[in-house]
Amino acid sequence: MKIEVDVAIIGAGSAGLYALSQVKKETSNFLLINEGPYGTTCARVGCMPSKSLIRIAEYYHERAYFEKSGIKNSDKLSVSIPEVLQRVRKHRDILVEGNIKNITRLGDKVLSGRAEFMDAHTLKVGDDEIVAKKIIIATGSSPVFDPKWKDFKEHILTTDELFEQDDLPSTLGVLGLGVIGLELGQALSRLGIKVTAVHSKEFIGGLSDPEVNKNMLQLCEKEFDIWLGDGHAVLTKVEDKIQISTDNNEVLVDKVLVAIGRRPNLKNLKLENLGIALDKRGMPNFDPQTMQIEDLPVYIAGDVNADRPLLHEAADEGRIAGYNVVKEQKKFKRKVPLAIVFTDPNIAFVGKSYKEIKEDSNILTASYDFKQQGRAFLINKNAGLCHLYVEKNEGKLIGAQMVAPGGEHLAHHLAWAMEKELTVYDMLALPFYHPTLEEGLYTLLRDAVKKLEHKKESILEIPFLGEAQ
Amino acid sequence: MKIEVDVAIIGAGSAGLYALSQVKKETSNFLLINEGPYGTTCARVGCMPSKSLIRIAEYYHERAYFEKSGIKNSDKLSVSIPEVLQRVRKHRDILVEGNIKNITRLGDKVLSGRAEFMDAHTLKVGDDEIVAKKIIIATGSSPVFDPKWKDFKEHILTTDELFEQDDLPSTLGVLGLGVIGLELGQALSRLGIKVTAVHSKEFIGGLSDPEVNKNMLQLCEKEFDIWLGDGHAVLTKVEDKIQISTDNNEVLVDKVLVAIGRRPNLKNLKLENLGIALDKRGMPNFDPQTMQIEDLPVYIAGDVNADRPLLHEAADEGRIAGYNVVKEQKKFKRKVPLAIVFTDPNIAFVGKSYKEIKEDSNILTASYDFKQQGRAFLINKNAGLCHLYVEKNEGKLIGAQMVAPGGEHLAHHLAWAMEKELTVYDMLALPFYHPTLEEGLYTLLRDAVKKLEHKKESILEIPFLGEAQ
Repeated sequence: MKIEVDVAIIGAGSAGLYALSQVKKETSNFLLINEGPYGTTCARVGCMPSKSLIRIAEYYHERAYFEKSGIKNSDKLSVSIPEVLQRVRKHRDILVEGNIKNITRLGDKVLSGRAEFMDAHTLKVGDDEIVAKKIIIATGSSPVFDPKWKDFKEHILTTDELFEQDDLPSTLGVLGLGVIGLELGQALSRLGIKVTAVHSKEFIGGLSDPEVNKNMLQLCEKEFDIWLGDGHAVLTKVEDKIQISTDNNEVLVDKVLVAIGRRPNLKNLKLENLGIALDKRGMPNFDPQTMQIEDLPVYIAGDVNADRPLLHEAADEGRIAGYNVVKEQKKFKRKVPLAIVFTDPNIAFVGKSYKEIKEDSNILTASYDFKQQGRAFLINKNAGLCHLYVEKNEGKLIGAQMVAPGGEHLAHHLAWAMEKELTVYDMLALPFYHPTLEEGLYTLLRDAVKKLEHKKESILEIPFLGEAQ
Repeated sequence: MKIEVDVAIIGAGSAGLYALSQVKKETSNFLLINEGPYGTTCARVGCMPSKSLIRIAEYYHERAYFEKSGIKNSDKLSVSIPEVLQRVRKHRDILVEGNIKNITRLGDKVLSGRAEFMDAHTLKVGDDEIVAKKIIIATGSSPVFDPKWKDFKEHILTTDELFEQDDLPSTLGVLGLGVIGLELGQALSRLGIKVTAVHSKEFIGGLSDPEVNKNMLQLCEKEFDIWLGDGHAVLTKVEDKIQISTDNNEVLVDKVLVAIGRRPNLKNLKLENLGIALDKRGMPNFDPQTMQIEDLPVYIAGDVNADRPLLHEAADEGRIAGYNVVKEQKKFKRKVPLAIVFTDPNIAFVGKSYKEIKEDSNILTASYDFKQQGRAFLINKNAGLCHLYVEKNEGKLIGAQMVAPGGEHLAHHLAWAMEKELTVYDMLALPFYHPTLEEGLYTLLRDAVKKLEHKKESILEIPFLGEAQ
């Protein structure tokens, strides 16, 4: 069948659905094409179920403070991993259900199948040919899986499979301590699974600031075994176990959770039929302010473009692509970078990265470690390290990397301040309630002021209070 | 002995110490006069020990989710109140210690005793006479105690005594559900004490927005008995118990925690010798932007002036008074009001109050209840109600009252946005990470946009993203 539409969107995940929200305002002649199960990566196998698991693990972990807080018999507590996984799936199913309802409501405007480009206006989906004025690619990404592991793939878990398990073994290797590996590795270890994590690089959880990274590493090493920068791991089946071997270490585990990254789902799209250059990953050139691929009527949004693989960015990219395929094309200003890792303490990144600022002599680093922070102390969370990058002339906030209690909130504070181009002086003039973790941010900002020597005098004279008009 | 100084500060609490931080920059000829134990109200008997108690109560309360989350044997957990109180005191002692060190470091610049005014430049402290160019009153406040209760005062606890107890009884009346009564009543109830709370008014926890108040009330009533608006409570000793009687109810309890307010410590200062008018509470007129009392060389800062009895305001008031007694006097701009009640969920107030806005036809109320909020759902905290007051023309944020998970953080976000005079559109253009409680704030802001009919079109056209320059 030949179907002619104004807009075809490939992928019914977050980016695709946000694109659709814009497209629908201008035309009802669209088609949403999806291969595989409905439900976004976020809700099905990503952000949402992992947050449920992490919360349960944190509940259980906190029993360490029960005894010294006057709560007795915490040693009687135990964990049933099958029930934990059931709980996580129950949470997930409720969230995915809403997701799927939104899609099925679209009726015959949704087509199930794999889309392949024939040219920049034409897609093949099974026996159907779709001719579209504009096309949005929003096919997302998938966990990397090494084909070498095929022979023992019953021992290998990706995040696509983890939450589907009936039970988990008592020993688990975690391959990769990026954002996902670190979140899940810590949570599973806290639930009583013996975790051995292997990471080929020196930096974990997406960090690039060496001191902040060291701080988080020390905290994590108290909880589970970490082999760092120890060459690439080789997996071998030994009887009914998997042996993980690196240059200097080896261990036998029951299963391995693979978290060595996610790869954009580009391979099956036949982008080569677009007649443009693709890089070695198969990625076309696109403009992150319009989401357009070169000057084609084709747009690429969300994890599939590998630029900012985060839900709120997928939403923005979807909206931008959706807007631009039905309206006069505009370039949009992208938001201040913000990323949060839901470990305990949280890791967070805001604004410019360490790599971008480390050689810039016009930027200083303020620092705070939460050890003496009142509220953090009272809730047994007085650990971490925040680095705030501050421009030396005006005291403008440039970026931050942190390991911090309540880091998810502090990171929003900093991202929003950077979005509004505030200085450390502007921020210190805001109300900080007592006793809160926000006061840790206050101390961090005070450290920046101390280091901004030439400003010190004038600021301290008006104790962070403006004169009344 | 007659002592002549540039500045005398009466009261070594938070306001007095913040005042001193400014005074010290200009003169070393000062005297800090303090009656009673050292250590601030906040660290000794207020914010800090209560946050420690609240955290332990929350730990214990969360066991309700253990069983359905796969954590077994939570029914074996129990609480030892004596050990809980020991833990709280241990936390408190560490915090008060730093406090006291700062004071003793001052050596003979601290005088222990009760200060009485002889005139606006002269104080009497025991046999000493202090003549000061400028004087700062920072004597704080004390819990209200009705003299009628003297005969059975071993059954009455104020917050000054609560944390000093070796144990607590199994039944407890809580008189007053303002901020302190609500925080402590909920926490003690969660620790297994049978709490009956009596409150003469309809509004609890400092709330004044009727719907938000109703929401919190319903949540609290699930946890402990509340008699609301039921006339004034009369306490009578009946054998070894206390009977609490109101118009419609009576109950026997072992002890009563009194939390019916705090009164400024003005009575012993002999302010009548200043030769100015005092109101019926004995309070002089003062300017909240300078802290000066009329045109006297006398300033009043912190809880003692009953204006904004919160630590961060006491700090500001201390700094303002301290600055103004040693420098050319300035009027300072006070911060956007911000108050947080550390119940679970948190209560918070930001900006203009409900009373100030309820008759203003130029202000609309946006609303969000967190029931469907993703992250709140995943952490079993999807309850609450946020009301955001928004100016109708530009969408400027004016105030908020909320009962919300993570309310302490959301309230900071809103207070800071109000301080920077942001609109709902400005805020929606900021990055909101997923899945976070901040997304609840996003939904609240979206509700405001929906209600700002005339703005809707232009805003939704550029899906909360600015055009690139």
